[in-house]
Amino acid sequence: MKLATVRVGGGTRAVRLDGDILVDLGHDDLGALLAREDWAAIAADTTGETWPAEGADFAPAVPRPSKVICVGHNYTNHIKEMGRELPSHPTLFTKFADSLIGANDPIVKPAETDALDWEVELVVVVGKPVRRATEDEAAAAIAGFTVMNDVSVRDWQFRTIEWTQGKIWDSSTPVGPYVVTPDEVGGVRPALEVETIVDGTVMQHDDTGTLLFDPVHLVQYVSTIIRLNPGDMIATGTPAGVGHARDPKVYLVGGETVVTRIAGLGACTNQVVAEA
Amino acid sequence: MKLATVRVGGGTRAVRLDGDILVDLGHDDLGALLAREDWAAIAADTTGETWPAEGADFAPAVPRPSKVICVGHNYTNHIKEMGRELPSHPTLFTKFADSLIGANDPIVKPAETDALDWEVELVVVVGKPVRRATEDEAAAAIAGFTVMNDVSVRDWQFRTIEWTQGKIWDSSTPVGPYVVTPDEVGGVRPALEVETIVDGTVMQHDDTGTLLFDPVHLVQYVSTIIRLNPGDMIATGTPAGVGHARDPKVYLVGGETVVTRIAGLGACTNQVVAEA
Repeated sequence: MKLATVRVGGGTRAVRLDGDILVDLGHDDLGALLAREDWAAIAADTTGETWPAEGADFAPAVPRPSKVICVGHNYTNHIKEMGRELPSHPTLFTKFADSLIGANDPIVKPAETDALDWEVELVVVVGKPVRRATEDEAAAAIAGFTVMNDVSVRDWQFRTIEWTQGKIWDSSTPVGPYVVTPDEVGGVRPALEVETIVDGTVMQHDDTGTLLFDPVHLVQYVSTIIRLNPGDMIATGTPAGVGHARDPKVYLVGGETVVTRIAGLGACTNQVVAEA
Repeated sequence: MKLATVRVGGGTRAVRLDGDILVDLGHDDLGALLAREDWAAIAADTTGETWPAEGADFAPAVPRPSKVICVGHNYTNHIKEMGRELPSHPTLFTKFADSLIGANDPIVKPAETDALDWEVELVVVVGKPVRRATEDEAAAAIAGFTVMNDVSVRDWQFRTIEWTQGKIWDSSTPVGPYVVTPDEVGGVRPALEVETIVDGTVMQHDDTGTLLFDPVHLVQYVSTIIRLNPGDMIATGTPAGVGHARDPKVYLVGGETVVTRIAGLGACTNQVVAEA
């Protein structure tokens, strides 16, 4: 199944994609749906109001997750371009729900930065509560996968030794459009082509099958530390090719179209708009 | 005013302390109260059910804030003990609502660590929505102050270059008991004695007036990056004297009583319980 949260009539609705039609699933958003123990059956069986998928206004795939946990240093090629050794543990940082935007919303370049960058990421969306998950429990807790552009404000990210202030900018981070269940992408450790295209030029290109720490491992690792709730997201890291690591460096200044795409999941397509 | 969230009858209630009596303020918790534009008038004027403050069961001061932002390196003496230079910008990291516990709840030492540590912190509690606050707007957005013990899992904190995984452990972080309005502590840049006492021994002792980045500055700084919502918390950093910086290092192993106290605000008093 491909599930999403779309904006309709001043609110949002959880929907399923059937061909080129979105079907209302009777819940305000995907977070509310995933909080239902029987969400998969509801998502499969519900027939409600429909809308065309073409031109849909996507909200963040889960608009108000209780946690967005991001992983750094998880593709071998990106670790090398940043000049680092292969790590023995995942590097974790976080975002807030207020940092998220929909899959096709504009990315607003804050006036306070001259170093706005892209990072395509495979995102794990949690489908059941887990703490200290075994491998089997972790696999079963994965509701599906979506796409994030972990838009990064590099000058603020590197002001101090902690990246947080470059990663949590308000309404900065597209996530969506669809949460795709594991059965549609080859399981809970999918090997999918992942790429970023800026104004038609491929900037990042890799395979999610090359993750050092795979989705199941990450659910186990994070859930050792803190409970994961339905709708929580783990962004699994970005491959080589970010603007900050290029020579010369390339940053988003406004006017670009950025596409972050993962085969089988879909794409976030965002105009960059420079703030006045 | 001194405001709190207490657990009663299987739920929680927002309360005001009148002498030694807690007065129900008609809201489920302090987060719901602070979301009201007229929260200060409601808090001052409401008369409801009462309970004795003695023996009250405190929930986290705000149980489900949309953001908990923590500041590292903010007391000169602590920066020096960690071997660092005085910074030009605040260092930010985050916690989740699921990391918080009440002011007198046990601190459970996870089985996965042998390096559990204390960090007393003055916490700013936000009382109105702000983004890119001016100095005056930032000052006006401060609802009050409370106490946090930013309990830290040092071995996990230093596994990678990002501290997050040592800072977000489930149900690890006491915050409370009271949110005290600025008028009771000398304003929005209070100079208050702050200390940690472990089994009767003073481990940290400083003055919140010596913060490098004061509460108003921090609200301005963080709100440049992301909106702050009512109930959001900014923990302003910890003074010298953490266990990890001692020679030899001192960690919490279970059985200790840890008191984190700020004059005029109150104290978190927590038993440390080693997980089986």
